Amino acid sequence: MDYRFLLDLAILILSAKALGLVAKRLGAPQVVGEIVAGLLLGPALLNVVQVTDTIEVFSELGVILLMFSAGLGTDLKELIRSGPKALLIATIGVIVPLGGGMLVYFLFNGFSAPPDPGFYSALFMGTIITATSVSITVAALQEMGKLNTEVGTAIVGAAVIDDVIGIIVLTCVQGAATGSGSIGKVLLMIALFFVCALVVGFLLYKLMCFLDERNPHTQRIPIYSLALCLFLSYAAETWFGIADVTGAYVAGIVLCNIKDASYVERKIDISGYMIFSPIFFACIGLKTNLSKMTPAIILFSVLFILMALITKVIGCGLAAKICRFSWADSLIIGVGMMTRGEVALIVAQKGLDAGVIDSVYFAAVILLIIISSVVTPVILKLLFTPGRKTQAAS
Amino acid sequence: MDYRFLLDLAILILSAKALGLVAKRLGAPQVVGEIVAGLLLGPALLNVVQVTDTIEVFSELGVILLMFSAGLGTDLKELIRSGPKALLIATIGVIVPLGGGMLVYFLFNGFSAPPDPGFYSALFMGTIITATSVSITVAALQEMGKLNTEVGTAIVGAAVIDDVIGIIVLTCVQGAATGSGSIGKVLLMIALFFVCALVVGFLLYKLMCFLDERNPHTQRIPIYSLALCLFLSYAAETWFGIADVTGAYVAGIVLCNIKDASYVERKIDISGYMIFSPIFFACIGLKTNLSKMTPAIILFSVLFILMALITKVIGCGLAAKICRFSWADSLIIGVGMMTRGEVALIVAQKGLDAGVIDSVYFAAVILLIIISSVVTPVILKLLFTPGRKTQAAS
Repeated sequence: MDYRFLLDLAILILSAKALGLVAKRLGAPQVVGEIVAGLLLGPALLNVVQVTDTIEVFSELGVILLMFSAGLGTDLKELIRSGPKALLIATIGVIVPLGGGMLVYFLFNGFSAPPDPGFYSALFMGTIITATSVSITVAALQEMGKLNTEVGTAIVGAAVIDDVIGIIVLTCVQGAATGSGSIGKVLLMIALFFVCALVVGFLLYKLMCFLDERNPHTQRIPIYSLALCLFLSYAAETWFGIADVTGAYVAGIVLCNIKDASYVERKIDISGYMIFSPIFFACIGLKTNLSKMTPAIILFSVLFILMALITKVIGCGLAAKICRFSWADSLIIGVGMMTRGEVALIVAQKGLDAGVIDSVYFAAVILLIIISSVVTPVILKLLFTPGRKTQAAS
Repeated sequence: MDYRFLLDLAILILSAKALGLVAKRLGAPQVVGEIVAGLLLGPALLNVVQVTDTIEVFSELGVILLMFSAGLGTDLKELIRSGPKALLIATIGVIVPLGGGMLVYFLFNGFSAPPDPGFYSALFMGTIITATSVSITVAALQEMGKLNTEVGTAIVGAAVIDDVIGIIVLTCVQGAATGSGSIGKVLLMIALFFVCALVVGFLLYKLMCFLDERNPHTQRIPIYSLALCLFLSYAAETWFGIADVTGAYVAGIVLCNIKDASYVERKIDISGYMIFSPIFFACIGLKTNLSKMTPAIILFSVLFILMALITKVIGCGLAAKICRFSWADSLIIGVGMMTRGEVALIVAQKGLDAGVIDSVYFAAVILLIIISSVVTPVILKLLFTPGRKTQAAS
């Protein structure tokens, strides 16, 4: 057995927390400090810690626990009420960045019409920036105590729908670009997942209610809940082709109305912040390697990133305004949807596999993830100041 | 990324907890049910879950958190007071099983004198059963609320010393059998570890006291503590050649007198029981494969296991009696020291590497680990009944 993971975990946990506290002292959310910790320790700078399989696993569990916790804290009535709004926000928030991403690609490579491979490359670059990765926003809203508000619910709901739309778009684009992949099958699987989650979820909800009534506040409740979360994450990813974090969020929704929901959430949060979630945030920084940047790529990256951020704010913000949110809240929703994450990388990877995207654009995608992850919580915090509630020190 | 680990973790956590509750209902400690869960799910029976690198990592962290928690809950004054007793219990508890293990080997293979390779094989078989693996006992005592008693402290203290003695014996035996390995260097490293731990530990203790005074009951205290635990585990294992769990226990001792020790212990325990420690116990069962057993090996195994258990009870029990414990408490100490664990497997592996031990004896070692892990907590529970304190439902 290689014991190196003990040292890696020790270094990451310690420095993520320490820099998180520095970030907090400077008025930024802690997650920004945690990402910077990874950036400092990783190949981009000091090269003390590398991303290993173990760190990947911890990072994945970190984001799963985060989304599970977000699901558990959901006000289900509020979510159902905000469903149609979330759908509109997600849809417009996918279309506008898709067009924007294509535009930037055409700017650098010239316009091409559909049969030309350049068109599909542009389509892929657009697809990369469609899916929001809401975990950073969730963590930032959680830290500020704003997660369980109308705005928070709209953001999380829209991000989940947006993830699903992103997968549908990816499958369509991939199918069109390579001539393979059955779009009908993907749509069917997604529909099946939500139907199964609804049916199985309702039965499990009843079962957990029964267990919870008999043995409230016992270890078994959070442990069984966690097992359900891990199982749904696995099922979503492996059987239905949907992101594992969507499965984790759905598991949280399934259990958000049991009596011990906040008890479970507390135990999950402790497991999360003690080990897993600092690793997740540090890992974003760790994965960055800036050595392959050329001036042309840097210019492309800057435009691409600006476009990705602005199109989400405009798309989602306008959709929110259409849904009768105030201008201030619409801006918050737009900004909250700016973050991109692993889905962007997955889309880029699929484009690379299909031979449609060049690997030089990877740096732009990674920079987008880092910059959106650092900038979003800072702007959110500014937009919420002066806040009404404040969170306990941590 | 292979998402299989999500399913493995879900199955292990769920079934370990469910069978743990069944065990509890039947009057046995929960850890027994958790080990049985691994046995049922693993290659020995259903073959649903295999031991992967990820499960190994979680299992290792499980035992580290368990020992860290035991260290955190230690009454330091009591430990210092019981130090000489623990040393005597450990020493006699190493010598008697060493002789017993050699005896069983000679019974099956005939006696050989020192220059003969058979003698060294016997010596190795004896060495395998010298080191106690106290984690199962710690978990059982913790469950019964008896960990922080005079008897509990004597057991944990003796087990830590016994681990160190076991490593010294292994090094001597390995050196004698293969003519390599510097015994002096090993002794020096062990001495160095405890000196370093004392000095660094005291400085870190002061630093943590300072942090704790400034920000009591904040997330940073348990997180920094955990980082220290992981770091000392790594340092012990990698730099000093001592078991990582010894490092974790020492980290707990270092922090057991900070004001927030019980706050830290609580957070560590939650992270432990939610994910890591069920995986550790299930993993013992998972690692078992009974398919290679022949009648001769079975007979040898039975005698070897009986000898391993009885010699620890006699050796440690008599030593405890010499230290003026009552007969009842001496028996508890002897039984508590019966459990063997990964150190036994490591010694067997080193013997195999040196060509001194045949691989057919591995099954006996694994069975010893399982049987001692299942039997010890059951007997401990019987010995403590009728108990004085009872633990909350879980």
